[in-house]
Amino acid sequence: MAPQSSEVDVLIVGAGPAGLMLATWLSKLKISTRIIDKRNTKVFTGQADGVQCRTVEVFQSFGFAERLVKEGAHINEVAHWEPKEGGGIQRTKRTPDNEPGTSRFPHAVLTQGRIERFMLDAMREFNDLEVHRSIQPTSLSIDPSLVSDFTSHAISVTLRHLSEEEATPTQVGTVANGLFRSNLLTDEEADANPPPNANGDVGKEEIVKAKFVVGCDGARSWVRKQLDLHLEGDSANTYWGVLDALVITDFPDIRLKCTMHSHDAGSILIVPRERDLVRLYVQLGHTEEGERVDRTKVTPESILATAQRIMAPYKIETPYVEWFTCYEIGQRICPKVTLDERVFIAGDAFHTHSPKAGQGMNVSMMDTYNLGWKLAHVLQGKADTSILKTYQDERHQTAQELIDLDYRLSRMFSAKPSTGADDKTGVSLEEFEAFFKSVGKWASGTAAQYKSGVLVEKTGATDVAKGLPLGMRFESHQVVSIADARPWHIGDRLESDGRWRIIIFAGDVRIASQKAQLEKVAAYLDSPSGPLRTYTPPNADIDSVIETLTIISNPRISIEPNDFPEILWPAKGEFGCRDYHKLYADDESWFSGKGEAYKHLGIDTETGCIAVVRPDQTVSLTCRLEEHELLGEFRRGD
Amino acid sequence: MAPQSSEVDVLIVGAGPAGLMLATWLSKLKISTRIIDKRNTKVFTGQADGVQCRTVEVFQSFGFAERLVKEGAHINEVAHWEPKEGGGIQRTKRTPDNEPGTSRFPHAVLTQGRIERFMLDAMREFNDLEVHRSIQPTSLSIDPSLVSDFTSHAISVTLRHLSEEEATPTQVGTVANGLFRSNLLTDEEADANPPPNANGDVGKEEIVKAKFVVGCDGARSWVRKQLDLHLEGDSANTYWGVLDALVITDFPDIRLKCTMHSHDAGSILIVPRERDLVRLYVQLGHTEEGERVDRTKVTPESILATAQRIMAPYKIETPYVEWFTCYEIGQRICPKVTLDERVFIAGDAFHTHSPKAGQGMNVSMMDTYNLGWKLAHVLQGKADTSILKTYQDERHQTAQELIDLDYRLSRMFSAKPSTGADDKTGVSLEEFEAFFKSVGKWASGTAAQYKSGVLVEKTGATDVAKGLPLGMRFESHQVVSIADARPWHIGDRLESDGRWRIIIFAGDVRIASQKAQLEKVAAYLDSPSGPLRTYTPPNADIDSVIETLTIISNPRISIEPNDFPEILWPAKGEFGCRDYHKLYADDESWFSGKGEAYKHLGIDTETGCIAVVRPDQTVSLTCRLEEHELLGEFRRGD
Repeated sequence: MAPQSSEVDVLIVGAGPAGLMLATWLSKLKISTRIIDKRNTKVFTGQADGVQCRTVEVFQSFGFAERLVKEGAHINEVAHWEPKEGGGIQRTKRTPDNEPGTSRFPHAVLTQGRIERFMLDAMREFNDLEVHRSIQPTSLSIDPSLVSDFTSHAISVTLRHLSEEEATPTQVGTVANGLFRSNLLTDEEADANPPPNANGDVGKEEIVKAKFVVGCDGARSWVRKQLDLHLEGDSANTYWGVLDALVITDFPDIRLKCTMHSHDAGSILIVPRERDLVRLYVQLGHTEEGERVDRTKVTPESILATAQRIMAPYKIETPYVEWFTCYEIGQRICPKVTLDERVFIAGDAFHTHSPKAGQGMNVSMMDTYNLGWKLAHVLQGKADTSILKTYQDERHQTAQELIDLDYRLSRMFSAKPSTGADDKTGVSLEEFEAFFKSVGKWASGTAAQYKSGVLVEKTGATDVAKGLPLGMRFESHQVVSIADARPWHIGDRLESDGRWRIIIFAGDVRIASQKAQLEKVAAYLDSPSGPLRTYTPPNADIDSVIETLTIISNPRISIEPNDFPEILWPAKGEFGCRDYHKLYADDESWFSGKGEAYKHLGIDTETGCIAVVRPDQTVSLTCRLEEHELLGEFRRGD
Repeated sequence: MAPQSSEVDVLIVGAGPAGLMLATWLSKLKISTRIIDKRNTKVFTGQADGVQCRTVEVFQSFGFAERLVKEGAHINEVAHWEPKEGGGIQRTKRTPDNEPGTSRFPHAVLTQGRIERFMLDAMREFNDLEVHRSIQPTSLSIDPSLVSDFTSHAISVTLRHLSEEEATPTQVGTVANGLFRSNLLTDEEADANPPPNANGDVGKEEIVKAKFVVGCDGARSWVRKQLDLHLEGDSANTYWGVLDALVITDFPDIRLKCTMHSHDAGSILIVPRERDLVRLYVQLGHTEEGERVDRTKVTPESILATAQRIMAPYKIETPYVEWFTCYEIGQRICPKVTLDERVFIAGDAFHTHSPKAGQGMNVSMMDTYNLGWKLAHVLQGKADTSILKTYQDERHQTAQELIDLDYRLSRMFSAKPSTGADDKTGVSLEEFEAFFKSVGKWASGTAAQYKSGVLVEKTGATDVAKGLPLGMRFESHQVVSIADARPWHIGDRLESDGRWRIIIFAGDVRIASQKAQLEKVAAYLDSPSGPLRTYTPPNADIDSVIETLTIISNPRISIEPNDFPEILWPAKGEFGCRDYHKLYADDESWFSGKGEAYKHLGIDTETGCIAVVRPDQTVSLTCRLEEHELLGEFRRGD
């Protein structure tokens, strides 16, 4: 009997952070999606844990940032500890974890299992999408006659349903001691007891025909192998132990993120965790070229013993260890990440690096956050297929920056402290701190900047909003709703719903000429040749493809909704009610002060500007109000 | 066959806001509880909707404020509209809905059905407690020989299981038009299709033996009737229509809360709602003494027609009406709310009033928020039964204030605008606005102040913290955690978990004498005669009954956890790890400025003070550090 066959728009292989972020996006946009994973359960403990500010912003745009902010530990300060003359260690400096003003959200730390839970819940809520577990792909082929027809299900993937034994991950680093289950939250209980392969499908093969396949299947990616692509780069020459534990210690900064170099016992990175856990990254030793570490010899006890030597004279004990591991990952990257824009790879399949920059999950999720809306645009006919090429350009650039940074950071951590100006191999305290500070902004994820290209255009005036550099994420500030006086972060109006936004900083509309200018912009937007009428399908709400938000610089009460052209707050929906949530003022609110958005974004309060923002909140174009016809060049990638 | 009989500590009759708040409290405190309701489903639309700041603070203490803040409309501003010379209406003033600084949370508006959902979810999460629906009590008796023995199940209540027909509420005000279901959120779907009386119990009788019974069964309370108690007070002489609708209008302030008096067409109160709904309270007419309104003659159309006359020349249409009602409730109160501190009434069973002060759910939930922890304390042997008497004292006082306020507010709304100084029956604009402002603070719920008594003691220095008046809720400000530099609102450390808190504002501990004073306080707390050792059961964590929080006024980095006496950050739990979350500084944080708690609370930054806070966040005692032996008088009510 021929194997069962089915069709889907997007097949995602791998349900780790990268795969789940893509599934979350596609669910939100109602794209036909299947996501499979060879494991029979998600992870619960350990793995990656740091969630950088930009990632929290993205979670907010999907509506679940508050779960992370509530459950996670927050990193506010970094303490730097260095060798002390005469022995031991001393605190040499305290710095903010990010420069104040980096983001309105904190850098939070929460185990990967919980992050996955938030996305699993979002997928279910958005489009009833679930991960199909205990399934492994065994072959992939593309019909050459269909490869340029993006409406075709050109890719065939054979899937095999695994047995429980095959699908059960080896929990190398999980320390079974009875507490593991009791630490689970209520909403994890079902996952912790995966049902036996429910439909008796063990060994069954099936064929999925897909328009796109995305490999989010980790550093040893099966999908990448099918494309005959390889990670390139350095192998590691130091190896580190990682321990998640409850601790008893007299070390005063155990609830701070700490960098620590000892005289000659090695280095530690301390990261405080949720549930009073502490993560210790402990330098264990060096390897020679080609040498591999015998990981079986690394135990929680051996990691702790090294930590005790480094932290002396402070004492530390770990009465409860939740998870541990040993890693020796170098910095490696795959130079090409797609086959004909039909098959893509993302996350660890695309780049691997040490966990020390706290980027593990973050860059991986940002890979698929970049890709998801583009796939949806092509599938929904909203954009030309050429926008898919920007995935390789934009994300390879970011991945390369990560690799370079991690290389330098790893070297800084692993090197011995400099013994003085004559010591050319050691790293001086000043050198380390300066570098550490310089990576902070990048590490927050807020500094990623996509270069000019089909989706980031330098055609308009780029000096009208110094705080909104092209290719970077839109920096959120508080404004006040004109209709209801509620303070809003602009970012909270940039929901991840697949829409582009035209944000009109209208300036001071008490000035007649400026008001007239705004009316010209509105008239253009309302015209048959403007982007709203051109790209919105008939019978759809006028803001369903491109949403317009207007922010004036003059006081809220100097104007009323009725004073704005209708296209800026259109009638919508089944009942034709006006949308009062599109008009804002950069004004003081009754209860939470003034956001000063114009000032922070470097926008002239009289003349304003216009910013076009992509569905992933990337600034795509800025221009003067007079240049509004540039908005007609809606970035379809054609 | 004798009816089935069961035992429970607390039986709650009625699963509206008051009943669910009590059930939430008791679940959190793991008290054996049963909650029944005669309806077969909770409400979905209409009913009460305003959630005042203090109520949001209580939601936060249970961990679900963010759901309300996210879903609800926020009320920031009130616009006042009055008759205009020559006809029509005009905006005369804009005021903040609450005075800035009233609370860190907004006044939010969300339908009662969603508020009930949050509490139902919390009950399930805390202790797997569910409402037993379609059940009605038919008799209640107390064994006179057991009434003084609070450990006995002295109360017998007979329950009857209803048929679907009996249990289906008549949805008077729900307008069926197909949208009703589509507006439900995912987590409401199951409730919207209540299962038929699942266990075939229709008509079955059973007996519940309870230690306490609380009647939260509404204005026509069955429980109150069993106690032979009655609501007393005025009957109404005006009647109002209420409409929840989507609107199309040129009235500019439709998304603001508005008070509106017309020349001679009556008054309106506008309250913007979630999902772009608007609630209109429309004055329909007067009744004579003893006359009743024929409510069947009130329709959405008749309410709208009156609204149109009042709002002229502005136009308003309601293309979609979700709910409507007509009310003529006067202000009435039950002078006695308990029988022998074994049976209590709360919420509408206790007091009824018009909805215009936006207090509908709020005072009702605050009734049982006051009662819940006291019942738990008695059941858990943590306090003498005499603390139960404080429920009547504290809540009757609040209810009476509400009744008085609502009486005056209703009169102000219903009266005609004054035509000049000679008009003694009309209400002048100035009079209305002054009164409206004066009720704001009370209406926010933050001004409720319980009088001196067994749980609020005036024995310590009451002038050491002007911002912490005895008997009022603890006013939250931001402080910074010493161990991890994280900014916290103190309120977020006052979780509703049944614990009392001793909050030590330690002053400036860089001063040797002040440090010594703090050490004396700590030594006392650590001594066998101190309240912690006296009231904490053996083998329980030392903070399990009374938690100590310490807040210094000097900079965070001038001190380290190790510098504090151990009792202030004790070792706890299975592994004996230290609790780093008890030590704070009134200091600037890296990312969110300075809370200035000492300044706002009027506490001397050198000498500090101590505040004792009840499990319901009420300030119970303030004193100087030197007066620390007053802490030994732990408020057990004996």
